[in-house]
Amino acid sequence: MDGYAVIAADTQGASDGVPVFLDIMEEIEIGKPAKKRVVSGTCSYVPTGGMIPEGADAVVMVEYCELFDQSCTAVYHALASGGNVVQIGEDVEKGETILPRGTRLAAAQIGALAGNSRRTVEVYRPLKVTILSTGDELVQVGGELGLAQVYDINTPALRQLAREIGFEEVKTQVLPDQEELLEKALRLGMEDSDLVVISGGSSQGKKDITAKLLDRLADPGVFTHGLALKPGKPTILAVDEPSQTILMGLPGHPAAALMVFRLLAKWLEQWRTGEADSLKIPASMQSNIPAAPGKDTCVMVELFPGDGEGYTARPVLGKSGLMRTLTKADGYVRIPMGKEGLKTGELVWVELF
Amino acid sequence: MDGYAVIAADTQGASDGVPVFLDIMEEIEIGKPAKKRVVSGTCSYVPTGGMIPEGADAVVMVEYCELFDQSCTAVYHALASGGNVVQIGEDVEKGETILPRGTRLAAAQIGALAGNSRRTVEVYRPLKVTILSTGDELVQVGGELGLAQVYDINTPALRQLAREIGFEEVKTQVLPDQEELLEKALRLGMEDSDLVVISGGSSQGKKDITAKLLDRLADPGVFTHGLALKPGKPTILAVDEPSQTILMGLPGHPAAALMVFRLLAKWLEQWRTGEADSLKIPASMQSNIPAAPGKDTCVMVELFPGDGEGYTARPVLGKSGLMRTLTKADGYVRIPMGKEGLKTGELVWVELF
Repeated sequence: MDGYAVIAADTQGASDGVPVFLDIMEEIEIGKPAKKRVVSGTCSYVPTGGMIPEGADAVVMVEYCELFDQSCTAVYHALASGGNVVQIGEDVEKGETILPRGTRLAAAQIGALAGNSRRTVEVYRPLKVTILSTGDELVQVGGELGLAQVYDINTPALRQLAREIGFEEVKTQVLPDQEELLEKALRLGMEDSDLVVISGGSSQGKKDITAKLLDRLADPGVFTHGLALKPGKPTILAVDEPSQTILMGLPGHPAAALMVFRLLAKWLEQWRTGEADSLKIPASMQSNIPAAPGKDTCVMVELFPGDGEGYTARPVLGKSGLMRTLTKADGYVRIPMGKEGLKTGELVWVELF
Repeated sequence: MDGYAVIAADTQGASDGVPVFLDIMEEIEIGKPAKKRVVSGTCSYVPTGGMIPEGADAVVMVEYCELFDQSCTAVYHALASGGNVVQIGEDVEKGETILPRGTRLAAAQIGALAGNSRRTVEVYRPLKVTILSTGDELVQVGGELGLAQVYDINTPALRQLAREIGFEEVKTQVLPDQEELLEKALRLGMEDSDLVVISGGSSQGKKDITAKLLDRLADPGVFTHGLALKPGKPTILAVDEPSQTILMGLPGHPAAALMVFRLLAKWLEQWRTGEADSLKIPASMQSNIPAAPGKDTCVMVELFPGDGEGYTARPVLGKSGLMRTLTKADGYVRIPMGKEGLKTGELVWVELF
């Protein structure tokens, strides 16, 4: 605080009507130590952020002072020792951990590091990801759409999600349904990526081809073919130990592909870095929702502020192939396996997109 | 769905025990239109994502079919018209607005644009920002710290926050308390930035110098000196119309500087782009908190999940100069002017950092 550095005991008895008079030793400048020690009966002017002089243990704000003459001030306020002073070590003590492992470096964390003169800090490198989209029905954005064809949504949408998660994108590619082309793209991806994502091929025949190919290329290969998750049943997971690559075969439907990728990628990052789960939003369900039997169910929801009562979560219903379900949703609620569903008015925790 | 495209009416009466027999016209390939029309008594195989043939109005899943021979299948399931089929326009109708103005382009939105073959879309350009930190007491991170000096926290922390908000940084600079240097830096900032942020100088004398300088350099100049906001009292706002620059003098204390910059920058971006407020988290206050009289008060809080009851918000107490208050906080609660404070158990809305 702008004010006078004093010995708190000197101000005892001072009040609005009864000032204490103190001799001014000096005007301390910001960024420079005091030249003189404050002794009983004296004080020194100190600006906000300035260093208090030896001897002083409190700062009385200028608002409570009245200059008597250039060398003496009246003080109309009593202080306790330590008043308006930040002690050395009050923010962070020497040897104290500033940020624990798994902390995401946002503005406040960068500030805390700077305050401790840390220009660099060890971080987890971003995982490198290759994103492949397969399907004879796919046309790249901007192209001419024929009958029975659709624009490739998954490559640009998954790329954006990968960026949001903090991955570094190596390559994205749209491929027709030709095994040699997919094999070549997978091999390249395994060479220079930590994670290779293949989406597309929601038909059973195509899923089987992808699974066989992943199992052949990766060592030890496929360890999951089908997640107990809705949406996400046709998900294939494989690992290649020699190249240290994880391979994910995602559902072809865009909304399902995004949902599954988000879940798996966030889980992977939390496992790797120790970062805590992001904060979920509590809400009250607006209607009953059944769960898929035998699996975890993700229900997309929109949030509406209730009448001073927190949020209401309204399920966004729609087929998993429709983008609309995703652009309308604020997030999703995960119903754990074994739970029959959600009841109207039930408290749920919404993970935001 | 992988299955047979049929005329729904043909399946009426089919059940687990009583199949309907349909002749198979063809196997439709993904990405290609059917060659043949489905007529009563016939069907065509179609993979998930394939285009259904003319005449058909539903798809019966392969799980409900049994091949009788290569040219005929038994169907054990009755369907309504439209079953397992996505209609043209069911996701987005022609002419419909896909994303309203003010939408942030995250993965789902990028996907929705791609699905409509939009490779480019008009966006708001990021605002260009120059960040200045002033003070004779400031030492740049990595430098040698003398007595009465502190490391410059505001430049790196504000830069990070500016990036998170979506600004484009033009320059950051730490300056000693010399009016000519500050004037030069401000003039440069006004030339090539939309926003010039000066933090530092929490003492009244320095604030007055900054305010006078801003008023002299900018036209029409300073329009606010002091916000009715805690923390944030010593904030100065100015505008220079010829160069279309907003100038902000922020408090010197890092936590206060970050808080005020966040509030003003988010407000500015929402005003400029029409983006909606981000979702706040409802929580129950863990203790009484008084508000500052005559101003809005921002209270930093940590969130703790209650016992199936939503979050409890615990105030993070601490002086505004301490980074600790910010690194510990999950967000803040804003108490509007005129409200005396928050009561234990009161529902509050927490804006996340």
